[in-house]
Amino acid sequence: MSVNDLIKRLSAFLPPEAVLYETEDLKPYECDGLSAYRQTPMIVVLPQTEQQIVEVLRLCHDTQTPVVARGAGTGLSGGALPHAEGILMSLAKLNRILGIDPLARTARVQPGVRNLAISDAAKPYGLYYAPDPSSQIACSIGGNVAENSGGVHCLKYGLTVHNILKLRVLTIDGEILEIGSDALDSAGFDLLALMTGSEGMLGIVTEITVKLIPVPEKAQLVMAAFDDIQKAGNAVANVIAAGIIPAGMEMMDKITIHAVEEFLHAGYDLNAEAILLCESDGSEEEVANEIERIHAIMKASGATGISMSRNEAERLSFWAGRKAAFPAAGRVSPDYYCMDGTIPRKHLAKVLSGIETLSEAYGLRCMNVFHAGDGNLHPLILYDANTPGELEKTEEFGGKILEMCIQAGGTITGEHGVGMEKINQMCSQFKSNELEIFHGVKAAFDPQSLLNPGKAVPTLHRCAELGAMHVHSGSEKFPELPRF
Amino acid sequence: MSVNDLIKRLSAFLPPEAVLYETEDLKPYECDGLSAYRQTPMIVVLPQTEQQIVEVLRLCHDTQTPVVARGAGTGLSGGALPHAEGILMSLAKLNRILGIDPLARTARVQPGVRNLAISDAAKPYGLYYAPDPSSQIACSIGGNVAENSGGVHCLKYGLTVHNILKLRVLTIDGEILEIGSDALDSAGFDLLALMTGSEGMLGIVTEITVKLIPVPEKAQLVMAAFDDIQKAGNAVANVIAAGIIPAGMEMMDKITIHAVEEFLHAGYDLNAEAILLCESDGSEEEVANEIERIHAIMKASGATGISMSRNEAERLSFWAGRKAAFPAAGRVSPDYYCMDGTIPRKHLAKVLSGIETLSEAYGLRCMNVFHAGDGNLHPLILYDANTPGELEKTEEFGGKILEMCIQAGGTITGEHGVGMEKINQMCSQFKSNELEIFHGVKAAFDPQSLLNPGKAVPTLHRCAELGAMHVHSGSEKFPELPRF
Repeated sequence: MSVNDLIKRLSAFLPPEAVLYETEDLKPYECDGLSAYRQTPMIVVLPQTEQQIVEVLRLCHDTQTPVVARGAGTGLSGGALPHAEGILMSLAKLNRILGIDPLARTARVQPGVRNLAISDAAKPYGLYYAPDPSSQIACSIGGNVAENSGGVHCLKYGLTVHNILKLRVLTIDGEILEIGSDALDSAGFDLLALMTGSEGMLGIVTEITVKLIPVPEKAQLVMAAFDDIQKAGNAVANVIAAGIIPAGMEMMDKITIHAVEEFLHAGYDLNAEAILLCESDGSEEEVANEIERIHAIMKASGATGISMSRNEAERLSFWAGRKAAFPAAGRVSPDYYCMDGTIPRKHLAKVLSGIETLSEAYGLRCMNVFHAGDGNLHPLILYDANTPGELEKTEEFGGKILEMCIQAGGTITGEHGVGMEKINQMCSQFKSNELEIFHGVKAAFDPQSLLNPGKAVPTLHRCAELGAMHVHSGSEKFPELPRF
Repeated sequence: MSVNDLIKRLSAFLPPEAVLYETEDLKPYECDGLSAYRQTPMIVVLPQTEQQIVEVLRLCHDTQTPVVARGAGTGLSGGALPHAEGILMSLAKLNRILGIDPLARTARVQPGVRNLAISDAAKPYGLYYAPDPSSQIACSIGGNVAENSGGVHCLKYGLTVHNILKLRVLTIDGEILEIGSDALDSAGFDLLALMTGSEGMLGIVTEITVKLIPVPEKAQLVMAAFDDIQKAGNAVANVIAAGIIPAGMEMMDKITIHAVEEFLHAGYDLNAEAILLCESDGSEEEVANEIERIHAIMKASGATGISMSRNEAERLSFWAGRKAAFPAAGRVSPDYYCMDGTIPRKHLAKVLSGIETLSEAYGLRCMNVFHAGDGNLHPLILYDANTPGELEKTEEFGGKILEMCIQAGGTITGEHGVGMEKINQMCSQFKSNELEIFHGVKAAFDPQSLLNPGKAVPTLHRCAELGAMHVHSGSEKFPELPRF
């Protein structure tokens, strides 16, 4: 169907301001948070009701038009990158909180509701929604479900999948699925988990029932400096080995510490090779007890300096540096590329040394700031997009980091998803029969592959071609990386 | 293919003692823990290696022979009920613990390993495996994965799906899938969650990497008696509302209290309408603090008597009654039927009163003993199989309870799975387009439906026939149940 015909059909059930097709109107939608990938969509629609989404999907189904859902556009793997011959469907207008049930401790929300808006609405009941991606001011809960987002506090409170109860989902032919239940279990195959993190490829979520938890009475933060990154890695292992599950446990390396300190003057120790931030939350007694134990472990693990937040203002100022790591990277380098891989905690030190080896080999600096407690790395590769070839070198460097994560028994994504960015690394992580299963599951929901086609799961053909490429580049000289 | 030909082909790669086909050898396999359903399999095989399983599956695939996997046979929903024209594959001989990694806190085990054997092996490292089905002495971890089993401590520590990291799975054509990772995340659709609880219908699990957690320093139990079941239900809500997540929170009603007290003389209050058991575990300080808070909440909720275990022996004796509820039911009634439904906690009192209404209408007693904290009910319907029609009446009563769970926003299974037992109620819980998605997912893994066919997901035809039946019986006089 021609673009004009599609626009005509869409305009039959959508108001004029909800159907965009002029180049200047399409421009803001050409990328999500991963701006290295850009694509102008054919049409953008902004439905305001579930019924309008049903109609859009039916039209796409009837006319074989690809459709890509988009939340707030803060995603970091290009999951919402538009399709050149497709409709981009923004869910931003479905932004109502439909209800909060303080007794059941749940909130029923539309997908366009901002992550933090849920906690704001739950605050009068002493409750909040736990997963806290760093973009939580802006990102939408629908996007969180699509990417199974995490955050600093996911070590203790789990990822998105662990904090939702029920989804209302539209299939590509506009049918409604109710997945999960208001109770803690559901029958049949676990479609709730399957849908979470499926990057808009299986259905369009129109309603989410999230779990709320009580705002902890108190939170306190320990900041420990180390003169050796290996010692900091061991301190992480020692805290976990003591049976403590901190509310958050974050690590920053020297280059990050310097970048944020220059930017923010937060009082971080510039002589440290690594800084650990370890938070405890709960009742006054629990926190007091846990903080004491964490302090003792940091000391025994060889920390060169340990501070404990004495009040809420100090706690927030300790966190400020960690939270400013990304903008700080933007100050010390014209561009940066944020990776996202997860490894078994015990390989932290080895993988960090491998990243250093790669950094030297590629001649590109890399900041390491990450969720140490759950082994979720976020290397920030610093580069200059205006230097010819540097983006390509950066992508190759990033690819090698992810392959090392796989070697270490880990995975190519912790919380950002695969999207477009890591589709080639899926070929490294999964064998072809495993990819076939992914394709089979996709086909069970969307046999014509109209929902966000080309994302997350590579074709076997793509992997085969990539394998051939790997073989061709196999002769290149390359530094030795750690073995696992 | 004829039975004899199959036996010949199986004997080519399996030792004689691993291929059973004589009636007396098949007899022990004709049912699992739900003995109301029985079926003699055509052949039983007992492979000892993964390679032997591969060969069995390839043979089944080539000859279009159904194959049903079986763990320890303790399942309560008939998930391992044999197929009359199929092979029953016991995984009991794959019972090795392949490795324990105390640093990563994981154990790699074969599916036939008993649940409790994992904790025993991890004990020297101060670790254990958290999910604790009541059959944990006997049940196998492979069966736990197949049914996504729970247990008393799942309120705090999660179901099986929350306690595993990685699965090695064979598809029906004998291909190996590696699902999940050694890290806390994985890329692509969440096949780990999809496989967990899939009742042997998507693949055969040959290796499981489970998470281990530190044995808590201390555990202490509060036992509170109530003169009204509604008050006990409110006490549950009040504990949760206070932000406490107990290690376990169990409720017993009057008929259960009397049955176990007669059986065990555990010192339960025979005047109580309901008893709550609420456990706290963690460090000495945490437990002391939490127990104090729980005590105060029970008192404020109107408990008529509160005891706290003073030592480990007393804690175990408080638990003894709860754990003996099933054998106690066997003493007060010739037969009993254990249901498993889950509801939002807030509807506890309403659903219990509905069960009482049904109990009177059917003239069958029902004991209620259940995981109150997570709303997972286990009504035990007492009946006599020798009274003609009483089993049928019991099944109908049970079906009505499950339908009430659905009405209350809950689900027809908490931890026992659907199996054969609840396949009709799947028609009540899911619409036909939702069932179609289940069938599509099944087909992505097993297009010819050879793996445990006919279980868990009803055909649309079955649901349609059942719908017709419902309509026919619609005129019957029936007591009014609560509305949600």
